[in-house]
Amino acid sequence: MNFSSDNAYGACPEILEAIVRSAEGSQPSYGEDDFSKRLRARLSEIFERQVHAFPVITGTAANSLALATLCPPHGAIFCHEEAHIATDECAAPEFFTHGAKVVGIAGEGAKITSDAIAATLPNFSRGVHSPRPSVVSITQLSELGTAYSGQEIARMGEFCRSRDLYLHMDGARFANALVGLRASPAALTWQAGVDVLSFGATKNGALGAECVIFFDAEKAADFEYRRKKSGHLLSKMRFVSAQLEAYLTDDLWLRTAARANSLAGDLARALERVPGAKLAYPVQGNQVFVHLPDATIARLRAAGAKFYDWQTSHDGRTLIRLVTSFATPQSAVQQFIELAGRA
Amino acid sequence: MNFSSDNAYGACPEILEAIVRSAEGSQPSYGEDDFSKRLRARLSEIFERQVHAFPVITGTAANSLALATLCPPHGAIFCHEEAHIATDECAAPEFFTHGAKVVGIAGEGAKITSDAIAATLPNFSRGVHSPRPSVVSITQLSELGTAYSGQEIARMGEFCRSRDLYLHMDGARFANALVGLRASPAALTWQAGVDVLSFGATKNGALGAECVIFFDAEKAADFEYRRKKSGHLLSKMRFVSAQLEAYLTDDLWLRTAARANSLAGDLARALERVPGAKLAYPVQGNQVFVHLPDATIARLRAAGAKFYDWQTSHDGRTLIRLVTSFATPQSAVQQFIELAGRA
Amino acid sequence: MNFSSDNAYGACPEILEAIVRSAEGSQPSYGEDDFSKRLRARLSEIFERQVHAFPVITGTAANSLALATLCPPHGAIFCHEEAHIATDECAAPEFFTHGAKVVGIAGEGAKITSDAIAATLPNFSRGVHSPRPSVVSITQLSELGTAYSGQEIARMGEFCRSRDLYLHMDGARFANALVGLRASPAALTWQAGVDVLSFGATKNGALGAECVIFFDAEKAADFEYRRKKSGHLLSKMRFVSAQLEAYLTDDLWLRTAARANSLAGDLARALERVPGAKLAYPVQGNQVFVHLPDATIARLRAAGAKFYDWQTSHDGRTLIRLVTSFATPQSAVQQFIELAGRA
Amino acid sequence: MNFSSDNAYGACPEILEAIVRSAEGSQPSYGEDDFSKRLRARLSEIFERQVHAFPVITGTAANSLALATLCPPHGAIFCHEEAHIATDECAAPEFFTHGAKVVGIAGEGAKITSDAIAATLPNFSRGVHSPRPSVVSITQLSELGTAYSGQEIARMGEFCRSRDLYLHMDGARFANALVGLRASPAALTWQAGVDVLSFGATKNGALGAECVIFFDAEKAADFEYRRKKSGHLLSKMRFVSAQLEAYLTDDLWLRTAARANSLAGDLARALERVPGAKLAYPVQGNQVFVHLPDATIARLRAAGAKFYDWQTSHDGRTLIRLVTSFATPQSAVQQFIELAGRA
Repeated sequence: MNFSSDNAYGACPEILEAIVRSAEGSQPSYGEDDFSKRLRARLSEIFERQVHAFPVITGTAANSLALATLCPPHGAIFCHEEAHIATDECAAPEFFTHGAKVVGIAGEGAKITSDAIAATLPNFSRGVHSPRPSVVSITQLSELGTAYSGQEIARMGEFCRSRDLYLHMDGARFANALVGLRASPAALTWQAGVDVLSFGATKNGALGAECVIFFDAEKAADFEYRRKKSGHLLSKMRFVSAQLEAYLTDDLWLRTAARANSLAGDLARALERVPGAKLAYPVQGNQVFVHLPDATIARLRAAGAKFYDWQTSHDGRTLIRLVTSFATPQSAVQQFIELAGRA
Repeated sequence: MNFSSDNAYGACPEILEAIVRSAEGSQPSYGEDDFSKRLRARLSEIFERQVHAFPVITGTAANSLALATLCPPHGAIFCHEEAHIATDECAAPEFFTHGAKVVGIAGEGAKITSDAIAATLPNFSRGVHSPRPSVVSITQLSELGTAYSGQEIARMGEFCRSRDLYLHMDGARFANALVGLRASPAALTWQAGVDVLSFGATKNGALGAECVIFFDAEKAADFEYRRKKSGHLLSKMRFVSAQLEAYLTDDLWLRTAARANSLAGDLARALERVPGAKLAYPVQGNQVFVHLPDATIARLRAAGAKFYDWQTSHDGRTLIRLVTSFATPQSAVQQFIELAGRA
Repeated sequence: MNFSSDNAYGACPEILEAIVRSAEGSQPSYGEDDFSKRLRARLSEIFERQVHAFPVITGTAANSLALATLCPPHGAIFCHEEAHIATDECAAPEFFTHGAKVVGIAGEGAKITSDAIAATLPNFSRGVHSPRPSVVSITQLSELGTAYSGQEIARMGEFCRSRDLYLHMDGARFANALVGLRASPAALTWQAGVDVLSFGATKNGALGAECVIFFDAEKAADFEYRRKKSGHLLSKMRFVSAQLEAYLTDDLWLRTAARANSLAGDLARALERVPGAKLAYPVQGNQVFVHLPDATIARLRAAGAKFYDWQTSHDGRTLIRLVTSFATPQSAVQQFIELAGRA
Repeated sequence: MNFSSDNAYGACPEILEAIVRSAEGSQPSYGEDDFSKRLRARLSEIFERQVHAFPVITGTAANSLALATLCPPHGAIFCHEEAHIATDECAAPEFFTHGAKVVGIAGEGAKITSDAIAATLPNFSRGVHSPRPSVVSITQLSELGTAYSGQEIARMGEFCRSRDLYLHMDGARFANALVGLRASPAALTWQAGVDVLSFGATKNGALGAECVIFFDAEKAADFEYRRKKSGHLLSKMRFVSAQLEAYLTDDLWLRTAARANSLAGDLARALERVPGAKLAYPVQGNQVFVHLPDATIARLRAAGAKFYDWQTSHDGRTLIRLVTSFATPQSAVQQFIELAGRA
């Protein structure tokens, strides 16, 4: 019963097989291999447009390199105050951008609105005394498991264009959002004004594979230098590209995301019926945020369930986070539901 | 016939199997998994001392993070002028250290001596006007395939202690050097005064796995923060640790290095007998630097051989580099020798 | 009637004379001159302790260099959310520290409390995923003109020691606070636990002179390298030191601050009697924050008065900031009072 | 007899008077004052073109900010191996550029040629593995007192344009070169292809004033943000601008440079006649490099002469550097000559 994170599980068999297959023979190094070439073509198909795609090994690298490519050292990046880039990456964006300002903004369900950004922009309008507004970063799924609809993204994209800001999407759980929203990759990204996407695969079945995807060659200009200079260009890059290729083959990524989402839905529906339980946010992917009685939580932990407290206990209840994944056993979900439901 | 680099080949079967095995079930993320714990214990055994070991995914990350941990932004790092950190990493050490100076020094066979460093130190003795001498970095094997003997390292270690400098070893080909020198890991590192080792596995059979090893806890103090902040802490770190664990099991690393070295020896002995050929440096690992007649080179390339020119043609001959690896086919070596030897 | 800032006026005659006198003859450069030596001795007298003092030319340089000396790239700095270092220096601390996190915290009168910091520390207790709490920075006078009492500072100092944090004081208006509080320089700094002080003189009569003062040699260790590397070591440093020496001679600094404070007091007392006016914060130095009817403000501006709106109009009144200085003419104050008081 | 550097002397009376005058009354801060506005107009006149000029307080700041504006973090800057930016600024350019590579190149008389740069460019042509060639920086006067002629600069400018490189001139002693070469400011800069000039005044009579001059608005785009973020935007900027304005009034800068050059010429002509003495480089400004018998040197030092050894003693002679300035007393030159000439 490990619901601590979707990175707690290993990797899909299809992806492991692809790694093993890719190990055969010699290949050019540093991304000139056949796997990397095929990957680039495949991503262009999926996104219905020529994309400029660069695999890396972690989400922090993907986000920080994407942001550093678009934001000068004296720039400001606007995101939700609980965004991963603001709270969970040890200020990596500040390091990669050489000192840009990450500005956290409040918002329901860990989502930000263009109105909220517009309201803070006057603080950055006094010339060189404050950093220059440069990038907006949204997280899909958000830190609270909610999704930005295509319309919401499009509104943000329009706002960004009107204010001369770039739009970055941290898509660590992009597949889960996509499946939940039943939308196309294109519709949720460049068609809605996204300039660069951190396309995550690690949480959804890869061993360690993310991809920074620019939808415009010009904006990607310096990326490859930055990736090399930060130690994120692997000599045997084929192993990362092979993971991503397998991930995108026969809809594997959509199937694994659908499975995780479905388990989260099962959890949500069951927990709603538990006396004293209360869902905190709509479940739009593979994360369930639920207030549970402290006694219930103690019982679950005693039985070996793993999950994080999201807010400390209040009124005898605690807000916890449950994350399902491509590999969470169905039985773990059943066991959790049963334990939670006991009087 | 791919002799371009030891990173042109895939990965050892034992390492691939370890990856697949490690994918089972759930594990704590970010290096708290069982594989990472066992790896730390295993490395302490091999180095005959409690070590502080941190896996990363590339050699550039290993070198730069090690250097940044020991060298302040206003420090100077002394290395050979052809060292990987000076010429092949897009100035990554300068980025990770936030602007330290990498000072390249000349030396036979791509090796530096303490005398040569001592001779340049007066340039760094004018207080704050020049960076503060902080670290010496040596490469084992060197960029020209030569090895520092235990005695040479110990001499450098003594020099460093006497000048209040740290000693870093870029051990991208540490196993090849170890096998060539028939010495113990301890003798070539901390017993000789090395403070931190970039312990390479990628070139010698791993898919993507290096390890930064500090021999003194105090010096490792900030490393983990720096690794996280630069995006080099993998959530599913077990996949990197599993590679290193397999690499160190049943002497796999020594066997793969021995194989690569042996093939290089075969090449060297055969090429010495080729009319017009001349070995440029002693072959002490898995790299052969040889002057060959341009006509011979053209014939080899026409037949599909891959390798790099190291110096442009001079007097009808060109200096080329041949690198063998854990997976270079014996037949490729034979074919190369045969082609090179033809009149 | 220029109340826009205390940096709008030139420099004291005594300081200008000192500059002219210091220009005579030759002197060693880069701070080895006689003026700089005498300054260091004088500051040790004033602070009743051996201090380690380094002149620089701007407050942003003083703050950022002080912070970078005490905070690692992966550290967090806690300050008021309206602190100069957080909002007015274009993220200079992030640049000088190479990416540390500046964490803004709310607080009455632009002052922070140890309780408020303690409440946010749990967000920084998840190991390497968030920056390491390293420094607390308080501003004396605060951005809203209020002063930290000796007791408040001592409480913060104790808190910092208990949490292994350094305490920095941005003393851009240190003299104004000192005069207002009738306390000794020692009592408001090291005796209360302050580790490093940005000692400002520019706003209080110097042409361009600040001084970073460490109270402990060990903590100042790297400062001089950082000052040089950031271009803040002047070759003709005597001109900066001479300003500071004159500033500290015959209590000039206390006299100029007393004058500015007294004018602010005059303004405050008079404005309190203006119908519709309301002081927003206690006036504890040379800044007056007052809500005035918009009509009154319009009349003042029409007559040539210069000052900043601090909050946009609300209920027919706007919060404005008035700053007095060593050189603000008495007549300007009288004229302002008269204009404000008219029906 | 202080010939140690041209920064050993104070400041011209005209400049001191301008500072005192500029202190009167209130002015907008941060460079919006009248002095700064007039300065920009005056510089455009002098350079016969609309320039984009930004005062700063040190040469290190001027050089580093200019370079960081033109060179990305992953760029390479080519300069002479003895250039100030390479050896005397504690790697400040590496800090301001966030890790660019400063590549030192050998050359006669501390000058570099386009041929020498062209010869090293192949080392930077392997894609992302080495930094991208971005800027060439030349020093006028060079570190050995020699000047680049207009023709030499024009040749370098052409080379830079052909290779897509920017051309920076470190003009710490620009006035001395100008006077020596009897050329116009325009001819030695933008007309010859210089993109940005560090225009020095401190060594030639200012108290602390340099100016970064871009000849093309587009290239100056980010400069002001970088200046603020590094703490180099003074609130009372008028004091720096007033210095530069006085410096450029009534040809003060040319008169002080002519005086310094003339004294250097006197020294050179006299020393040539000293038995055992030998000028090392042509004297083209205010620096004299001369080999003198060690006994002569000892006698001079015993009499109180101050100067730097440039190379350690060899064959009983040492290469020393003598620098004259706007304020070096004529009598000091005479005394030195007399002492040097004694049998």
